[in-house]
Amino acid sequence: MSEIRRDPITGRWVIFNTDNPFSPQDYHIEQHIWKGEKNCPFCYGHESMTPPEIESIRLDGSKPNTPGWKTRVVPNKFPALRIEGDLDSRGVGLYDMSNGVGAHEVIIDSPHHFKGISDLEQEEVEYIIKSYKSRSLDLRKDTRFKFMLIFKNVGASAGASLEHGHSQLIALPMVPKNVQEEIRGAERYMGYHERCIFCDIINQEISNDNERVILENEYFISLCPMFSRFPFEVWIMPKFHESDFALIEEEKIPLLAQILKESIGKIRKTLKDPPYNYIIHTSPVNTEFYPGYHWHIEIMPKLTRIAGFEWGSGFYVVDTPPEIAAKYLKEEGGY
Amino acid sequence: MSEIRRDPITGRWVIFNTDNPFSPQDYHIEQHIWKGEKNCPFCYGHESMTPPEIESIRLDGSKPNTPGWKTRVVPNKFPALRIEGDLDSRGVGLYDMSNGVGAHEVIIDSPHHFKGISDLEQEEVEYIIKSYKSRSLDLRKDTRFKFMLIFKNVGASAGASLEHGHSQLIALPMVPKNVQEEIRGAERYMGYHERCIFCDIINQEISNDNERVILENEYFISLCPMFSRFPFEVWIMPKFHESDFALIEEEKIPLLAQILKESIGKIRKTLKDPPYNYIIHTSPVNTEFYPGYHWHIEIMPKLTRIAGFEWGSGFYVVDTPPEIAAKYLKEEGGY
Repeated sequence: MSEIRRDPITGRWVIFNTDNPFSPQDYHIEQHIWKGEKNCPFCYGHESMTPPEIESIRLDGSKPNTPGWKTRVVPNKFPALRIEGDLDSRGVGLYDMSNGVGAHEVIIDSPHHFKGISDLEQEEVEYIIKSYKSRSLDLRKDTRFKFMLIFKNVGASAGASLEHGHSQLIALPMVPKNVQEEIRGAERYMGYHERCIFCDIINQEISNDNERVILENEYFISLCPMFSRFPFEVWIMPKFHESDFALIEEEKIPLLAQILKESIGKIRKTLKDPPYNYIIHTSPVNTEFYPGYHWHIEIMPKLTRIAGFEWGSGFYVVDTPPEIAAKYLKEEGGY
Repeated sequence: MSEIRRDPITGRWVIFNTDNPFSPQDYHIEQHIWKGEKNCPFCYGHESMTPPEIESIRLDGSKPNTPGWKTRVVPNKFPALRIEGDLDSRGVGLYDMSNGVGAHEVIIDSPHHFKGISDLEQEEVEYIIKSYKSRSLDLRKDTRFKFMLIFKNVGASAGASLEHGHSQLIALPMVPKNVQEEIRGAERYMGYHERCIFCDIINQEISNDNERVILENEYFISLCPMFSRFPFEVWIMPKFHESDFALIEEEKIPLLAQILKESIGKIRKTLKDPPYNYIIHTSPVNTEFYPGYHWHIEIMPKLTRIAGFEWGSGFYVVDTPPEIAAKYLKEEGGY
């Protein structure tokens, strides 16, 4: 018998294969064939291959657009949205439309072509988080922007077009539907229980013998959500209630870097370096404040071929229940 | 400048690349390498390789589980849900869960291993639609079931594990979230305008010089929706207001078969036989009646590798606006 579970935040139902759960070896995982550094626009010495940098972290006093940086932020060469122009919202019959105004930036994670997040030193991961924070805070000064979407694609089948580790930030002129839904769900729960649903999830998971908890430190927890849509999905959440990722305090950044690096390390070891995505889910900006929302990072290994079907139906089937995924991840691939 | 459009049904925003739209040749389309009929459980003479058939269309008086069928419906060997048992809905702390009760059936489209929908005779496509209808009507007698999800995956990267043409029907004990959202959107529009939003979309598209309309017959229309989430997405809709696919009248089935066959034929020619999915979006059963809903079929060619951005945000970027997709499809690949 399989089990159907409901995401208490969004109301989405997910079917879990509890009869015959898949182990990591049961997935066909696309392996990356490295092309190397030769024509990589993100490597040291190739700075002129990107548009001029918006910002960089440099400890050695080196000049912009030269080597020496720790992280480097550049405009996306093929942006989904452009910063110039007016939104010009308008109706065409029953349709609503507007111009594609926004920002689309690339954060080059490190100078190391072949290193993923978990291969970097913890300090190097801290620079990445600092760049996310700094760009988020800068872009929200433009009040046209309502949401900062920060995400990472690793591996071609997870949507990465370049293999050198990088992240992306898209500043959107409207709050995306999925974010709205999460917020609505969290606010509804807050209205009824006067508590944050994410905080309650953390408490319930800890009191359930940490069965689905992977890692924990003073400020953060990483776990496989009870209602995950993807096998081996992992969420990293602040243990204390915080709505807005970009307001993270400086002293917490090393602990976030640590848990992010180690969680990804466990995913990579357990699943033999799968393609993956992560996304920072955070509060909208320049709009209403939602006290019931709780920022977090969702990490989704790309293990299955999910095509239009799941998207069309909103109906997910997951072959590894999160309790079992967590067991493998805790053992860090020692199976 | 790109353009942002809102799906008036669900409220979802989609970014269209109007600056530099992609043509069919700009997509990397995964080509299928045929394995052939040898061990195919869906070919004539291999009937014993599937569980015993639930139903079949046979014009020659042949016996169940022997050759001679036109379409054949069998239980899925690896079902996501099982028909036996109680739903047994329960709460575990703040989580809701239930047993995986439901039905998961496979409709074998035809005896022809190598033929897709558009290679079949129109009459053969009619049998497929009749099987969809018949199974939907039979399964809804079980009042535990609230929604019949009928869909087709073609090609490995669209999720098909067998290459012989087949469809699937999953009877669900709850209404999936995306269906609920569509219904809510349609009901909201109906409440305000006292009209069906899908009917209004059809009218607006026809009065807009049929720019996005691909095909039309007496009862059906196929078009690229103004707010499509995937490039070259095509919807087939009844032109007259109907909520429930399974109540389709017998005399309309040939016209649905015709427009389905021809629409898929155009997609296959234009995009050189891409992997694709289609899903029948229809009303829930054994629950409230939603007069504002309008059933339709969504066909989604699998042309892109969807990345973290879309996953995380529900905000899609489409590189071929539907006006341009429709132009190629109308020319039927004659470019």
